[in-house]
Amino acid sequence: MSVYKKITNIAAESRFMESMKNKELIEEVANKLNWTAQDTAEMLSAFNSILGSKLIDNDSIYLSGFGQFEIKKKTERISVNPANGKRYLVPPKLVPVFKPGTTIKTKLKELSDNE
Amino acid sequence: MSVYKKITNIAAESRFMESMKNKELIEEVANKLNWTAQDTAEMLSAFNSILGSKLIDNDSIYLSGFGQFEIKKKTERISVNPANGKRYLVPPKLVPVFKPGTTIKTKLKELSDNE
Repeated sequence: MSVYKKITNIAAESRFMESMKNKELIEEVANKLNWTAQDTAEMLSAFNSILGSKLIDNDSIYLSGFGQFEIKKKTERISVNPANGKRYLVPPKLVPVFKPGTTIKTKLKELSDNE
Repeated sequence: MSVYKKITNIAAESRFMESMKNKELIEEVANKLNWTAQDTAEMLSAFNSILGSKLIDNDSIYLSGFGQFEIKKKTERISVNPANGKRYLVPPKLVPVFKPGTTIKTKLKELSDNE
């Protein structure tokens, strides 16, 4: 099998996994709220697009009981190419950062302690 | 003003900011979907709690058009206390990681390039 074929397979598989995950989430929310999957899917897609546009407007987002999103600026830095050892400049970059809320942090701590 | 008073003020202020942010988000979603704020608030709180419980069940979450959440295990590591230079062991830790989707990554890249 050609490398190209392998890559396209992996990409197709990950898109499939993503859509399965998304379907699962829609079903769970629909069950919890007693809605149709169709209404829930429409709501989620509107919600996701609002989250995206607020983030891109550099507006922090707070989902109570879950966590907070912010945009942080990663400054310019010098890195080394491991292949040839040459140093190069990595330009500044805007990255979204997720800070979990206290509820999630506490539960994850309990999980780590019990491992 | 005592240190204690200062801390409680800061905590109160940040809770106020969080609730303002949350209210803002509810209003935006309500407008976009043409819903009442009440219905939207109920939906968001159900949605946030599902996100939280899925994450804690170590289930990755995919919000199409926005991004993906996963739990990663930070391994045990040795750190140094800057105050006294003493080395100490940081226990392993479970942390939620957010990976932005392609749409957000591309838009943030455009923003960084135009800065």
